[in-house]
Amino acid sequence: MRKVGIVGEILVEIMAVEPGEGFRSPIALVGPFPSGAPAIFIDQMARFGHPCGLVGCVGEDDFGQLNIDRLRADGVDVSAIRVHERAATGSAFVRYRPDGSRDFVFNIRDSAAGQTTLTAEGRQMIAGCGHLHVMGSTLSAFGLAEAVEEALTIVKGKGGSVSFDPNLRKEILSAPGLTECLGRVLAATDVFLPSGDELFLMTEAKDEMGAARELLDRGVKVVVVKKGAEGAAWYDNERILTAPAFGVTQVDPTGAGDCFGAVLLACWLQGLNPTQALRTANAAGARAVMVKGPMEGAAFRADLEAWMAVH
Amino acid sequence: MRKVGIVGEILVEIMAVEPGEGFRSPIALVGPFPSGAPAIFIDQMARFGHPCGLVGCVGEDDFGQLNIDRLRADGVDVSAIRVHERAATGSAFVRYRPDGSRDFVFNIRDSAAGQTTLTAEGRQMIAGCGHLHVMGSTLSAFGLAEAVEEALTIVKGKGGSVSFDPNLRKEILSAPGLTECLGRVLAATDVFLPSGDELFLMTEAKDEMGAARELLDRGVKVVVVKKGAEGAAWYDNERILTAPAFGVTQVDPTGAGDCFGAVLLACWLQGLNPTQALRTANAAGARAVMVKGPMEGAAFRADLEAWMAVH
Repeated sequence: MRKVGIVGEILVEIMAVEPGEGFRSPIALVGPFPSGAPAIFIDQMARFGHPCGLVGCVGEDDFGQLNIDRLRADGVDVSAIRVHERAATGSAFVRYRPDGSRDFVFNIRDSAAGQTTLTAEGRQMIAGCGHLHVMGSTLSAFGLAEAVEEALTIVKGKGGSVSFDPNLRKEILSAPGLTECLGRVLAATDVFLPSGDELFLMTEAKDEMGAARELLDRGVKVVVVKKGAEGAAWYDNERILTAPAFGVTQVDPTGAGDCFGAVLLACWLQGLNPTQALRTANAAGARAVMVKGPMEGAAFRADLEAWMAVH
Repeated sequence: MRKVGIVGEILVEIMAVEPGEGFRSPIALVGPFPSGAPAIFIDQMARFGHPCGLVGCVGEDDFGQLNIDRLRADGVDVSAIRVHERAATGSAFVRYRPDGSRDFVFNIRDSAAGQTTLTAEGRQMIAGCGHLHVMGSTLSAFGLAEAVEEALTIVKGKGGSVSFDPNLRKEILSAPGLTECLGRVLAATDVFLPSGDELFLMTEAKDEMGAARELLDRGVKVVVVKKGAEGAAWYDNERILTAPAFGVTQVDPTGAGDCFGAVLLACWLQGLNPTQALRTANAAGARAVMVKGPMEGAAFRADLEAWMAVH
């Protein structure tokens, strides 16, 4: 099995217990939860039993250790997680509004996460990977594009494959150099995993099928559109498939797309057929939203299969 | 009344609800509370009705706004609080251990608090002050010594007075240049407010009376030793006074020393006699420990006087 590598932000998440607006007065909170989209993704990958590792950076504090302990326990290669001697581990405070949207207070850019570079350990870990997953959040918000592109060059140079989850909002695209960077990543992408409208971030077509066709024509092998409670759609040069989501009660959607993506990708790397891959990834997404905490719903493979057998 | 100025760190504090060790798993928290020793001090000063202002820096986020709103509402001059366009507001996670000691996770040095400088607004605000209070935490841990010393020069140049709360641990004294900086501040100090052993940080004498004498001989006008539940002692060239603490149930000692210091200083500036000053400051400290949250126990003057009348 091709080992999956990722470069990106490791954070803790602190969640407001009750929905409401922002963080301008003391409220009940719960945390710290291990978090960061790349960390969630790679933890789900490991829990699904696929070999994987993460290049990241945390502070020399409990928040960093919490993340390393969790990822290591689940089987992620943590040899390339740097413990920064001075910077603090990145954090995100999250509060759901009554309408389901979210308010955040971030400490990322100036945190240890923002110091992520491809260290010697990072280069070595990535050189041992046959696949690289790229998170758009890592490219856009946190200034880590250089490290990601260096990893991309290493993996592609060895004939490895690449997956890409844009995981970003259109308003961010104005960041200097970001569009070009996304273009380079997309040009190297085998498996593209947009959520909803992210499909159209870099296409001329404005309809799903047209946009997928456009991306396949540019060399992407598989486009999987994530639609949350609406399920998912698979496009490749041979087929179009859709699969409904599992009907579950949503507790916390954070991380569901990352869990879906990790399992979808593991299935693809392991040669499962697209129908199985979609269904299994949907199950991972469903399990993720049932549990509070960004990666607390990441399912172990045996549990996921047992759950699917009865759903 | 001489307006009191301070330069220093503004933070939010996130508190663990239950005592225990550190932050390596998700636990119940409460916050954000407005915090930072200089912010607590100046908030108590304002609530006591004494004119005052703070030079500080917060991020453009809810945590920063929370602090500005609170300080402004209580009457602090917030004209010199900079809202940093990029850095995040500083934070401190605090958990009490069962033995009463505390575990922290800080984000300060690389936060907006660490970007505090004497801006044009800061210089103007400080130029309007007749007294400067200096917190040792600001000098030592967070690299803001330069801004503090600049403010000191402005206030002393106008014939203003200075108070100094070391608020630091002996182990920190090895930081480059810190001892010299503390020496310069102490040489300018009129009112020295050490807690316990901080009295001996810069004295040869190792007994309380000898150390106080040594400091008075060096030009300090008043030394007030803060002893928490043991009360406080006042030393000047005419008298030695001690005052017992008020007997209250301690809920959260954070900030009590800052509240004590602010009220003691306000009384000194307002010409209250030392006996009254000690008793009123002890009352402020007592009120502070009775309430959860770093500055939530800062008492308004009328409430403090009403409370003292029945205790």
